[in-house]
Amino acid sequence: MLDSSAVFRRQQFLIRTLGGYTDQTHQKRMQQTMALSGTAFEADAENILRAITPTFDPSKHKGQAGKIAVIGGCREYTGAPYFAAISALKIGADLSHVFCTKDAAPVIKSYSPELIVHPILEESYSVRDEDKLSITRKVLFEVNKWMERFDCLVVGPGLGRDPFLLACVREIIRHARELNVPIVIDGDGLFLVTNSLDLDLVSGYPLAVLTPNVNEYKRLVEKVLNCEVDDHDAHEQLLSLAKGIGGVTILRKGKSDLISDGETVKSVSIYGSPRRCGGQGVVELSTGFFLLLIVAVFLSWARQRLSAAEGDLHISTINPTILGCIAGSALVRKAASLAFQDKKRSTLTSDIIECLGRSLEDICPAS
Amino acid sequence: MLDSSAVFRRQQFLIRTLGGYTDQTHQKRMQQTMALSGTAFEADAENILRAITPTFDPSKHKGQAGKIAVIGGCREYTGAPYFAAISALKIGADLSHVFCTKDAAPVIKSYSPELIVHPILEESYSVRDEDKLSITRKVLFEVNKWMERFDCLVVGPGLGRDPFLLACVREIIRHARELNVPIVIDGDGLFLVTNSLDLDLVSGYPLAVLTPNVNEYKRLVEKVLNCEVDDHDAHEQLLSLAKGIGGVTILRKGKSDLISDGETVKSVSIYGSPRRCGGQGVVELSTGFFLLLIVAVFLSWARQRLSAAEGDLHISTINPTILGCIAGSALVRKAASLAFQDKKRSTLTSDIIECLGRSLEDICPAS
Repeated sequence: MLDSSAVFRRQQFLIRTLGGYTDQTHQKRMQQTMALSGTAFEADAENILRAITPTFDPSKHKGQAGKIAVIGGCREYTGAPYFAAISALKIGADLSHVFCTKDAAPVIKSYSPELIVHPILEESYSVRDEDKLSITRKVLFEVNKWMERFDCLVVGPGLGRDPFLLACVREIIRHARELNVPIVIDGDGLFLVTNSLDLDLVSGYPLAVLTPNVNEYKRLVEKVLNCEVDDHDAHEQLLSLAKGIGGVTILRKGKSDLISDGETVKSVSIYGSPRRCGGQGVVELSTGFFLLLIVAVFLSWARQRLSAAEGDLHISTINPTILGCIAGSALVRKAASLAFQDKKRSTLTSDIIECLGRSLEDICPAS
Repeated sequence: MLDSSAVFRRQQFLIRTLGGYTDQTHQKRMQQTMALSGTAFEADAENILRAITPTFDPSKHKGQAGKIAVIGGCREYTGAPYFAAISALKIGADLSHVFCTKDAAPVIKSYSPELIVHPILEESYSVRDEDKLSITRKVLFEVNKWMERFDCLVVGPGLGRDPFLLACVREIIRHARELNVPIVIDGDGLFLVTNSLDLDLVSGYPLAVLTPNVNEYKRLVEKVLNCEVDDHDAHEQLLSLAKGIGGVTILRKGKSDLISDGETVKSVSIYGSPRRCGGQGVVELSTGFFLLLIVAVFLSWARQRLSAAEGDLHISTINPTILGCIAGSALVRKAASLAFQDKKRSTLTSDIIECLGRSLEDICPAS
């Protein structure tokens, strides 16, 4: 089942490092991008999506279209990590793993035989104080032995807020960062990093993406900028926030999705607007469950594409993390819009996920 | 559910033995086959599939269209054994059993009420050293009491690599071989037999089929031939490899599927090629999960057909194991191609499995 030879893993690591957006290149490229894009905030989302979606290649084998891992799923929550993980597969990622608690695993597995589910996280209620150290080590060992194979780690869907579990996840994030694995953070993952001691976890890491909803964004602004959310100056405030966390990328979900890495701000408004009055709100709530996974997949594709197209100024001058967010946002908005056309008020998250493939095919036909 | 009377089981055993491809007849028949087929590597896959697929016969009863067992499914992996087992039913096998660990059983059962799932395997973490011998005996007793009824055993999907579990599976393979039950081996089953001590498990057994992917094939070549994979001389190398393992049949999955039993090499390229540029790669990834089961069903049909058609030179001179592989490969390639036409990039393993019935009907209509 695991076809990752040492050679293949090293190749992947090389792609990750080459495609990686380091602090050194960050500012230079962003200056070029700004010069190219001027003050036009609205991203050319469909073209970006087409540019980074990989073409089919018979020489590729299992794993090369993306291996994604979700850290989430506990005794209480199992839906969100499932929605997240299956979404990655629905747009063409090869493998989608979930690392969750023992209670959550059989349930998540039962939703779909397509996922690889690891029942390894522990919550406080099942761990004695004297065992905490050894169990933490065991959890880290289990996750870390897979880590190098992942193109992106997604932290947060259905994670819950158990202190012991979050302490383990903090170490998992640290390890991912050491290995230059991109990390997308949402939900309870954002709760974790917004805590006073933990903003350092992602601060200054250009391969981190935060995808806050309204309330999570409010907490971030209060915490980092010490002020209230200002919707009249949304672009500037988002820019300051991303800069304030050392150039991480923030995707602020809303009527228009706003994306910034502290150097530029881009907006994605397509598909959503015309139907807002007719239920887009409902749809928008659901997309949080899996938008982050779609971003994760596009992010890894954008990084592969970047490393393969260093000479192509149009692509190579744009932060691949921003590209991933723009493409992900556009795709999910289109899927939500298609699902709503069909299901109206009864649109569920599952319906939007079912539309992901069609959306991708509409924008970027496979053949 | 179990209609196998002692008489019926003996009949089945007779078919198995008569239809069995013994070492003694192997070389003779292959010489005839080679004379017939010349150097044409590409198999006449659709005609072979039609020749071995059983016609409907009201006098047949449950079980006669094939009883297949999958050995696989552990705490971590449940999807692969499910995909494998359900695929057999989707092309018309009568009964599909899964032997897995206690943790995996409820999950696999939850995927489908059509399967018979036996929660009898054990992993090291749940077994004390002093109990290992008695538990091994118990596991073997539970599997072996069913063994004689099976037309084919499939070892490997989602098996995992737990040493205690693999030690039990080694004994299961030995017993299947003693009873002349055909065995198809994939995934972690290949990991087991590729180990130095265990190549003997299948070596020289003409009813064994190995279905390696890229990496598994590489390991086999290194192990048996002490060299690297040579794609310029793929046919000859595969021939040497199959011969080197004493005439087992190897189905090497790839752009074209290559099949050899050490005497002949056949290639199956239909369906895949025209659409490779448009997603066959994606589709190919998934087929490993259940190709082996399809091969298992066709293999058992081919053996039944062979024993009924000894006078028909065209069919009876070809190793039924090779016939099973050719038919299985063709059917799965067609199903993958149909699924991709419909689902494009979002094609999942489940979608391909849903197309198995239609593919079989297209090639070999039931009425």
